[in-house]
Parts: sequence; C-alpha cells; structure tokens
Amino acid sequence: MSTKAPRIPLGVIRRLPVYLRHLKQLEDHHVQTVSSQELGAQLDLNPAQIRKDLAYFGEFGRKGIGYEVRYLIDKIEQILKLDREIPVALVGAGHLGIALCHYNQNKPGNLVIGHVFDNDPAKVGMRIGQVVVRPAEQLERCLREHQIRMAVIAVPAEHAQEVADRLVQGGVTAILNFAPAALRVPEHVHLRNADFTSELQSLAYYVLD
Amino acid sequence: MSTKAPRIPLGVIRRLPVYLRHLKQLEDHHVQTVSSQELGAQLDLNPAQIRKDLAYFGEFGRKGIGYEVRYLIDKIEQILKLDREIPVALVGAGHLGIALCHYNQNKPGNLVIGHVFDNDPAKVGMRIGQVVVRPAEQLERCLREHQIRMAVIAVPAEHAQEVADRLVQGGVTAILNFAPAALRVPEHVHLRNADFTSELQSLAYYVLD
Repeated sequence: MSTKAPRIPLGVIRRLPVYLRHLKQLEDHHVQTVSSQELGAQLDLNPAQIRKDLAYFGEFGRKGIGYEVRYLIDKIEQILKLDREIPVALVGAGHLGIALCHYNQNKPGNLVIGHVFDNDPAKVGMRIGQVVVRPAEQLERCLREHQIRMAVIAVPAEHAQEVADRLVQGGVTAILNFAPAALRVPEHVHLRNADFTSELQSLAYYVLD
Repeated sequence: MSTKAPRIPLGVIRRLPVYLRHLKQLEDHHVQTVSSQELGAQLDLNPAQIRKDLAYFGEFGRKGIGYEVRYLIDKIEQILKLDREIPVALVGAGHLGIALCHYNQNKPGNLVIGHVFDNDPAKVGMRIGQVVVRPAEQLERCLREHQIRMAVIAVPAEHAQEVADRLVQGGVTAILNFAPAALRVPEHVHLRNADFTSELQSLAYYVLD
C-alpha cells in the first residue's frame, strides 16, 4: 500500500520532468508566465491534460495569467523531491554502469550515484570518477547504513531479478532497471524499465525514404 | 520542408511505441480486442487522446468493439517503419556506445546497429559482438554507401556537434543523441536527446520517506 494519498497516475509523474525541463528552458529565455494553452502547443499535449496533471498537486495557475514559471519550477521540484539530495545506488560496473556513473557525475543534480556494486572481483576497487566499486556482498548492509531508497540495475538480464530482490531487502523503494528482463517486485516498490528500443523505434518514423 | 502530410505532432509519434509495447503484452495474454477506454485506463492516458492519436493515421477502431489488437500492432509497426530493416550507425565506441551496441544485438529487432565509428586509433578494429569499429574518417562515405539515415551519437559532449554535422552531411535524417549537449541540426533532420536524468527524476517521486 502506498503512503501517499491521493494516488497519482504514473503517466502524470512521468510528464512532470518533461514540464520541468521545458519550464527551465522558458526561464532561460526570460519567460515569466505561461498558459496551459502555450505549454500544450509547445509540448504537443492537450492543455486540459496539463491543467489536470498539475491540479493533482494544488492550484498553481491563475485565470487569465497562467502559471508563473519560477513558482511552477519550485513546486514541481518539491513534488519530485528534487529540492534535496537523494543518494542512488548502482549495481553493475560494466560498460553501461560506468557510462551512467560518468553521466551522473558530469551532470550534477540532486540525484547522486554515490555507491556502485559489482560481484566481479576484478571490478571491485575500481574507481569511476569519485566513486569506488564495492563488492556485491556489501549491498544490503550498505543500503541500510546509508538509507538508500533508490537504485539503478545495470547487470546482465540473468542476474537482474536477484539484484532486485536484494535491493528490496536493503530497503530500496524505487528501481530503474536497464537489464532487458521483466522483474517482479513487491507492491510498495516502484519499478521503471529503461527502454532504449522505444527511443529508437519512435525515431524510425522520421527516417525519410 | 517535410515530405509527409499531414504533419504529425511529436508527442503522437512518441506515444506510438508505448501503445505498441502495451498491445504486444495484451497479445501475449491472448487479448484480441481492446477499447480506447481500456487502453486509457491501462496507460494512464485520456481515451480521447488515444483515439485522436490513432486517427491521424486512419480509422483503426470499430464502434462498440474497439481495436483489434493484432491489426493495430501491424498498423503501428507500418507507421513506425518497424516492418522493414533499418540500418543504424553509432558514433562513439566508449562505454556507452559499447553498451548500446551489445543491447541492440541482444534484443534483435528491425533497427540494426551495423556500423560503429570512433576517432580513437586504439578503438578502431575492436570487435563489439559482430560489428567492427571503423575509423571516423570513413563516416560520411560509409553512410552514403549504405544509405544509412539513422544514427546514434555516443561521443563526449565537446565532439557531439561536429559529429552531428558530419552525420547530416552523410545523409542522416534521424539522430538519437546521448551526449549532454544541445545540438543544432537543419530543419529536415529529426533530433532526439536521450535523457537519463528525466528517468531518474520521475523515479525520485516514488522514494518513500
């Protein structure tokens, strides 16, 4: 059971970072207010959908004026918990894990991959930027010690379920899975599957003949 | 100017793979027909949005019955050009490039990364599964020779614009960019920025306190 009430649809939560990124671009261009009509046109979304999405969290817009850009950025960052530092664990220091770790360090934000684990003794002790790879045996203990609730899985598909089970055991409640495997997690855990294939697929539409 | 008429909003094109993946799951569960209401509930989207999205491409549903799952899968695959093999070039054989290449080979589909390029002599000639890394000098010539229209950029941010320019020069019209850089491309080229940060951000919402 979720501790949140009301329950927000997943689609809404997935659109919030899209709104956020766009609002930050508007702010960079010194735009101070924006209407749901303008946002809808800029993001190819129904203005009513945008108003409904944001209304889950409160009354952010004003009739005839729209949304104040800075205020809405602050609110969405609060909703997504981007106003505090969140430690993230990464399991799997293969090519993908290393790439994700570098990416995270090069684009500093509030989500910090501070712990990386691998079961390969050859990788344990390896430095990825400021982070040192730890042995997988320490996973659960380390998660609990540092109260880590969020994790990224970047291991081969055949190990992904075991890793997910151990993450849950260690107290993780939000998992981003890069392994091409359908994972089972308890109801209270949120699982997201990263999907490179979908990105490529929707791009194929734009290949001109 | 686009050669397509009517011009389909980007948001619609990005939702098609989501519909497709879900329809394939329904098919796996032997579901034969589905209504836009059911799809909307399952995908957290407005049923009217789904009907409108699909209506850009034709009349796929029937009143009182809904959509035939198999038929709609075929149609979306045609729209996204997933019914033919599309060659994809990858530039950058670093950790991310290697990971993407392995991923593509492990999940075979119609989008085939068959050519990989890098400007580092130490990487040229390296095998990634069935593909051999080629020198970056051959990029434009190879793209033209094999009529490659789609490419993935996985180089450091500071080289991404130069690579994009050369891809366009070689005839590429659809680019998936993994470099954290804002790239400029001509109007006829479709650029998509992969965004690991947004994925993590929307996941942070589910971190329970």
